Amino acid sequence: MTGDVPDDDLLARVFLARVIEPGDEVAGRWVREWGVCEVARRLRSGGVTLPGVGDKRRAGLVARAGRAEPRADLAVAREAGVRFVSPGDGEWPGQLDDLGDARPLGLWVRGPASLRMWALRSVAVVGARACTEYGAHMAATLAAGLAERGWVVVSGGAYGVDGAAHRGALGAGGATVAVLACGVDRAYPKGHAQLINRIAEQGLVVGELPPGDHPTPSRFVLRNRVIAALTRGTVVVEAAHRSGSLVTARAAQRLGRHTMGVPGPATSGLSAGVHELLRGDATLVTDAAEVVELVGDMGELAPDRRGPVLPRDLLDAPARRVLAALPGTRTATADEVARGAQTTEDDAIARLYELRSLGYVERHGDGWKLTRQAMISVRSGRSPC
Amino acid sequence: MTGDVPDDDLLARVFLARVIEPGDEVAGRWVREWGVCEVARRLRSGGVTLPGVGDKRRAGLVARAGRAEPRADLAVAREAGVRFVSPGDGEWPGQLDDLGDARPLGLWVRGPASLRMWALRSVAVVGARACTEYGAHMAATLAAGLAERGWVVVSGGAYGVDGAAHRGALGAGGATVAVLACGVDRAYPKGHAQLINRIAEQGLVVGELPPGDHPTPSRFVLRNRVIAALTRGTVVVEAAHRSGSLVTARAAQRLGRHTMGVPGPATSGLSAGVHELLRGDATLVTDAAEVVELVGDMGELAPDRRGPVLPRDLLDAPARRVLAALPGTRTATADEVARGAQTTEDDAIARLYELRSLGYVERHGDGWKLTRQAMISVRSGRSPC
Repeated sequence: MTGDVPDDDLLARVFLARVIEPGDEVAGRWVREWGVCEVARRLRSGGVTLPGVGDKRRAGLVARAGRAEPRADLAVAREAGVRFVSPGDGEWPGQLDDLGDARPLGLWVRGPASLRMWALRSVAVVGARACTEYGAHMAATLAAGLAERGWVVVSGGAYGVDGAAHRGALGAGGATVAVLACGVDRAYPKGHAQLINRIAEQGLVVGELPPGDHPTPSRFVLRNRVIAALTRGTVVVEAAHRSGSLVTARAAQRLGRHTMGVPGPATSGLSAGVHELLRGDATLVTDAAEVVELVGDMGELAPDRRGPVLPRDLLDAPARRVLAALPGTRTATADEVARGAQTTEDDAIARLYELRSLGYVERHGDGWKLTRQAMISVRSGRSPC
Repeated sequence: MTGDVPDDDLLARVFLARVIEPGDEVAGRWVREWGVCEVARRLRSGGVTLPGVGDKRRAGLVARAGRAEPRADLAVAREAGVRFVSPGDGEWPGQLDDLGDARPLGLWVRGPASLRMWALRSVAVVGARACTEYGAHMAATLAAGLAERGWVVVSGGAYGVDGAAHRGALGAGGATVAVLACGVDRAYPKGHAQLINRIAEQGLVVGELPPGDHPTPSRFVLRNRVIAALTRGTVVVEAAHRSGSLVTARAAQRLGRHTMGVPGPATSGLSAGVHELLRGDATLVTDAAEVVELVGDMGELAPDRRGPVLPRDLLDAPARRVLAALPGTRTATADEVARGAQTTEDDAIARLYELRSLGYVERHGDGWKLTRQAMISVRSGRSPC
């Protein structure tokens, strides 16, 4: 369809995602004012009616618009098991709207879970690529502890702290999301190909960039705003002065999310950036319990007072099957639940964390059980809401 | 004079210091309401007119009053080079009055400097006895950095962090004060006898307890309020949960002093107490510059705008001699100044830190020089005030 004007919202967003760089607030304003189809139309017709950009930049956008093939992008994505989630979709995480004109046009998503559900109870764990053993240990331990408490661990898929956080969550049979600065059909960095594929199976791999796109320094920086906006809070484990992780932390602060830092030796340059944050408004945390105390809502401290927010009838069929496979009062492992629901363990984990976000289930160590609220409704035959 | 009623304020205070335990607020109220001589009289005559204490405790106080010999205490102290400084004396640090009814009756002081002058620009550096190598390193480095910036380092003379802080200050040719929980003629702990004697030569050894008295657990705890009150702020370097250093930090907080903590690995039990403080209102610090930024007054950031607060004519003769020994514009070492003033290096250091408190001199690395304000007055022949 080269040359065509994309004729529906989805296609126009896929088209624009190929043309406009992540976080471009000028383009974001166009979209807010005229809608995606109209912006696509103006780009296709030479862009002269697009204000706020110089001639050179306009020419670059128009050239990219000329090469964009949204239907082909969608086909390539589908082939790679990647879906496109856009604002208004059932799976769109509403908190990304806090980014205003820097909101992504859409997100490419790989993996079995609902991004929207998972993001509801998620925490970012980020930090230095060249971290110390201490940093890797803390990232893995925090992530495992968060996973065991039913929280989803979000990070950037990079070497060092990010990788340790993803692995810590996976190792605890938990949920993790990697937000990449390139097409989610690519594995970047290359050395993390296996890890990223594993995350796509048990968790979610997410990004703004269309299939095949490569990362650039500015894309790394702008990716961080998505990590910050997606989550309830950001924990920086190790970071030197002027580290990219501090960008994520400051974005989280601006967005009103919790910002946390793990202390380290005052003699360590890789803790200097974290200490800088902690001398500001960030909160010092040393374990997962302290993170959850901060990001958890009232329900975290007083679970009895909260019931699920979504009636059981509105759950999709796979989630209902997983819910039905949980025993009445005792805990069950994800593996047991998977067998009961006749699905894979990865799929069961995806559903369990979704149900956790909705207040139906809780994780206790390695086991899952119905919440008190859900149990009452099971016994009385009523929906828990 | 056993059995006599001490007949002047000084003698009555020395007498009461032998009878009343540090920090006793009931006795502090008696002193506030009736004055020290009247309280001493009542204790000598059986104590029946003293309210707010049970019979057993009253009997204990009266028995101690019967044994107290203030003239003998003063003689023993004089012999050991110890003086008694009491509220109203020229050397009394007025900020101790913030302790209200828990204010010490007086302080026993060993060493060449003026406690009042030194305390004006002092910071407490405290922490665990059984500290790690990291803790000892940080304590010594912070103390040396504070000394080099003209600040006096106050600590408790104990093993671990305290000892490292004192040594760090001494090693940098700096000023340090040890506040003991026993008579200042004793060296406690024994293994620090040499260090404490060295502090008494180059710095000050201070305490509430009369000559020969031994430390007890409650005396250690109550000593901490003196460290907190004496200084502009308290830095905790390493402390486990429920450590005595946290008592000092919390006392500092209650007194409106700055409370600071040095971060460490989240995996270290000896940093757990510090991290607990940092999760509250304490400020994270990683070096001496950050400490001074916090405790320093405006003058620290803008030295040009502050002149000495005490006219040169009111300085005592030794301080005037040291001031006169400083070269007009360049820096001089403490050793050079000592030779110029015909005194010992320890005495010169004592005076230099006093003059620093008064705004006459500044320390730059290993050298001392007149402040801009003092230079102008030297050149114009006027007093700098």
